[in-house]
Amino acid sequence: MNTKNLIFGTLLIFIPISIAAHYLHWSETLIFITAALAIIPLAAFMGEATEEIAVVVGPNLGGLLNATFGNATELILAFIALKSGLVAVVKATLTGSIIGNLLLVMGFSMLLGGLRFKEQNFQPTTARLNASVMNLAVIAILLPTAVQYTSTGIESITLQKLSVAVAVVLILVYLLTLLFSMKTHSYLYDVGIAENEEEGEESYHPNLWLWVGVLFIVTVGVAIESELLVESLEIATADLGLPTLFTGVIFLPIIGNAAEHATAVTVAMKDKMDLSVSVALGSSLQIALFVAPLLVIAGWFMGQPMDLNFNPFELVAVAVAVLIANSISSDGNSNWLEGALLLATYAVVALAFFYHPAIEGL
Amino acid sequence: MNTKNLIFGTLLIFIPISIAAHYLHWSETLIFITAALAIIPLAAFMGEATEEIAVVVGPNLGGLLNATFGNATELILAFIALKSGLVAVVKATLTGSIIGNLLLVMGFSMLLGGLRFKEQNFQPTTARLNASVMNLAVIAILLPTAVQYTSTGIESITLQKLSVAVAVVLILVYLLTLLFSMKTHSYLYDVGIAENEEEGEESYHPNLWLWVGVLFIVTVGVAIESELLVESLEIATADLGLPTLFTGVIFLPIIGNAAEHATAVTVAMKDKMDLSVSVALGSSLQIALFVAPLLVIAGWFMGQPMDLNFNPFELVAVAVAVLIANSISSDGNSNWLEGALLLATYAVVALAFFYHPAIEGL
Amino acid sequence: MNTKNLIFGTLLIFIPISIAAHYLHWSETLIFITAALAIIPLAAFMGEATEEIAVVVGPNLGGLLNATFGNATELILAFIALKSGLVAVVKATLTGSIIGNLLLVMGFSMLLGGLRFKEQNFQPTTARLNASVMNLAVIAILLPTAVQYTSTGIESITLQKLSVAVAVVLILVYLLTLLFSMKTHSYLYDVGIAENEEEGEESYHPNLWLWVGVLFIVTVGVAIESELLVESLEIATADLGLPTLFTGVIFLPIIGNAAEHATAVTVAMKDKMDLSVSVALGSSLQIALFVAPLLVIAGWFMGQPMDLNFNPFELVAVAVAVLIANSISSDGNSNWLEGALLLATYAVVALAFFYHPAIEGL
Repeated sequence: MNTKNLIFGTLLIFIPISIAAHYLHWSETLIFITAALAIIPLAAFMGEATEEIAVVVGPNLGGLLNATFGNATELILAFIALKSGLVAVVKATLTGSIIGNLLLVMGFSMLLGGLRFKEQNFQPTTARLNASVMNLAVIAILLPTAVQYTSTGIESITLQKLSVAVAVVLILVYLLTLLFSMKTHSYLYDVGIAENEEEGEESYHPNLWLWVGVLFIVTVGVAIESELLVESLEIATADLGLPTLFTGVIFLPIIGNAAEHATAVTVAMKDKMDLSVSVALGSSLQIALFVAPLLVIAGWFMGQPMDLNFNPFELVAVAVAVLIANSISSDGNSNWLEGALLLATYAVVALAFFYHPAIEGL
Repeated sequence: MNTKNLIFGTLLIFIPISIAAHYLHWSETLIFITAALAIIPLAAFMGEATEEIAVVVGPNLGGLLNATFGNATELILAFIALKSGLVAVVKATLTGSIIGNLLLVMGFSMLLGGLRFKEQNFQPTTARLNASVMNLAVIAILLPTAVQYTSTGIESITLQKLSVAVAVVLILVYLLTLLFSMKTHSYLYDVGIAENEEEGEESYHPNLWLWVGVLFIVTVGVAIESELLVESLEIATADLGLPTLFTGVIFLPIIGNAAEHATAVTVAMKDKMDLSVSVALGSSLQIALFVAPLLVIAGWFMGQPMDLNFNPFELVAVAVAVLIANSISSDGNSNWLEGALLLATYAVVALAFFYHPAIEGL
Repeated sequence: MNTKNLIFGTLLIFIPISIAAHYLHWSETLIFITAALAIIPLAAFMGEATEEIAVVVGPNLGGLLNATFGNATELILAFIALKSGLVAVVKATLTGSIIGNLLLVMGFSMLLGGLRFKEQNFQPTTARLNASVMNLAVIAILLPTAVQYTSTGIESITLQKLSVAVAVVLILVYLLTLLFSMKTHSYLYDVGIAENEEEGEESYHPNLWLWVGVLFIVTVGVAIESELLVESLEIATADLGLPTLFTGVIFLPIIGNAAEHATAVTVAMKDKMDLSVSVALGSSLQIALFVAPLLVIAGWFMGQPMDLNFNPFELVAVAVAVLIANSISSDGNSNWLEGALLLATYAVVALAFFYHPAIEGL
């Protein structure tokens, strides 16, 4: 854990650098890269602050907090991009977050965990339930796209109404999954929590207000850096020669999910596979059932045409990631080859995005 | 059961009302609504009469009877719509019946059953076998559509020939599943039957001829009311402001499957989950492997261009329903959240059909 | 086994006949049919020679040999077709080999095995792992096609670059699966091998050089006959009135896989289901992860535009075959109905290819 903290601590230096770069009008590419690097530790501290507060306020309210702020970085980044009208970038980042969590985070966890342990086990019941929820999420983003492609001359406003209605259903389902995992069937999830506590890191009682303060400061930090990132995005990616779709789907989500990566892989190497899988699956589930629908509803109020009608190729990529992740996780055990298969799928998807010609809006 | 019988008994009043509405030339909307309400109890009595006769004639012939007449209402309704050339309505009703059984009936069963019992179990072997059969059914309606969309200038007659050939394969598979469940592997299905008998409702020996008479009268009743329904369909839905695709896929199947709903939910709340799941899965399986192929072959002889080339959006909806139903049912246990997921999927699919612009032929 | 050897022995007579037909300028249809018949025993002896050599050189090198030469007939046939520029035929044959192994070979094995034994069991862990690998293979051929269909004006060279990159990933995954099954997790695969040895056919120590000689001669035989087959293909299928897509997908793979059929069915009838399933799944896996990517890379060097961008209908057919094969095999047991379902799916797919209008390049 010390190495992790050291790396994240060092990355904090990029906060002043990126702000300086902005005010001194350095190149957009430099602003982009430094802001991206600065977000990594901020996202990590945000996650940590949320968890510390969760310990103080108790499991119920704490679980809710975790569930709401767990992907706060993605949410803030997406809100700012949405405000700037970069709807396509928002969709690409959401796609990339889901794919990244399912394939990259879970892939590395299973591979590195599997190199140490011949076979690793986790709760198949919750894995299968998560699989069904992810299937629902794919269906929810598939249907508006399918409506558009199977009808001629559908009005954009109809698609947005449909998207908002579907978004409301998804948020409702999200609340139900919280009710299920925290209240009615919490015993199914006890393993993961128990394992987490075993780590013994939370043996002291954290100071609530200290951490609320940290959370506040860090949140402001993420907002600021996200603005720098979004502002410099278009020029910087052009300068770097990166396809913008590739940047949105592959590059940005790696930044936003660096902390989840570190956690999931670390606990997998301690054979705490339940926790590792729940971090990866839970995070993508949260994005699909909470962050994405929230942005659709926010877009509706902000007058930005954000809907669930994703670019068909993004849809294919998400569907493909869910298919292979479900196929690998639903039996409740893993080995290094399964991790390698997830990473290979990620490689194939990333290659496809890399060679994909630019798409309108990106 | 008394509440159920009371409701169905009361609905019988709509039989004379709908006929009167027809002869007195009342509004088409009124005919449509009263005929729809009149079909609900008729469908229920038809199911009951079939089951009573099945008890007398013994398990083998009885099982065959049940398998053939189980969806007789849908079959009669579809035949009359097909005779009137409403091919698109027939396809929409078939789609809706499959979706309704998999998502709505199974969803309510699992949700309401799950509110009473923390976890409910059923035979995973048969659930998984049903899942494979439903996959075959999706494949069978997917392939003709895929042939059309991946070729230029395919003749309509070729598609119909292909559909008839595929229909013959499906009916053959249907006969094989009957052979499997009644003869060679009947022991796998004993649980459900035993549970059914436990209900003790069939302790008396029903009068065969009485029930054959009831079945005959009820069948005539359904034919009559179906004709009224089909006749008034187009004008009534226009008056009510309902999209016709929505009426075919969502509204009509709820009418035709009201009895299955009642049965599946009732037994689920008694923790007889095997029976409940087999009613929902069995009914959609019957429609996909027997009713739909039979209509394709009938359409061929009646000169109506009925084929298995469904509207792509209907295809997506069926595929999606099968995907999530399989993902939830294949592990052999259920809880309230799984029921809620099925209902949420139904809600999303219904919303998509509601906002879908009209499609040619509808 | 004697009947099998007798049939294969008799078919050897078609080797001289086909060569004579070629030099005496008999009809192309005759050359096509005799060359096709001549390949069947050659493929069988090639498989046998590989296995005999594998016994001598030991499990590790032998396993590698088996893994490399297991589908040598398909590979040779495809190379020659590729050299002649028949890219569409190559893709069709690959599609057909995967479909044939998953549906026809596994279907007959489960059906005929299931007629003798009420229920047959095999290792679910390896079956599920194979399912995930096949999902990856489908994803790998789906993505280049999806890239093409979701972008306007993508250059052919970009698609080929993407295909080569994906092919490299697939071959890497193939090597990892070999490492997994032979080294790190070989205990999972011991059952199949033990069963194989039980057959007791290999109790003598085969003469290495004799079999290397046989392998060499047989390989030359297959090359020769493959050339005759490819040369006569276009005219012969036109004469026979067979759609060329149908020939490529359905007819050619049956020729190339006759030996696998015989083996898988024979061992299934001896209740050695582990071995039977691994022959069918393993063979399709090898084609998807090794033969197809090798041909893409070879095509790149040979200047033939061979890529992983399959005809969409072929893609649908492969996806459908993998879907149903995974759905049936992943629970680790089989019965006759599951075999019948696979065969029914094959029938439906074959019908669709039969009625499919000709596609460009075929």
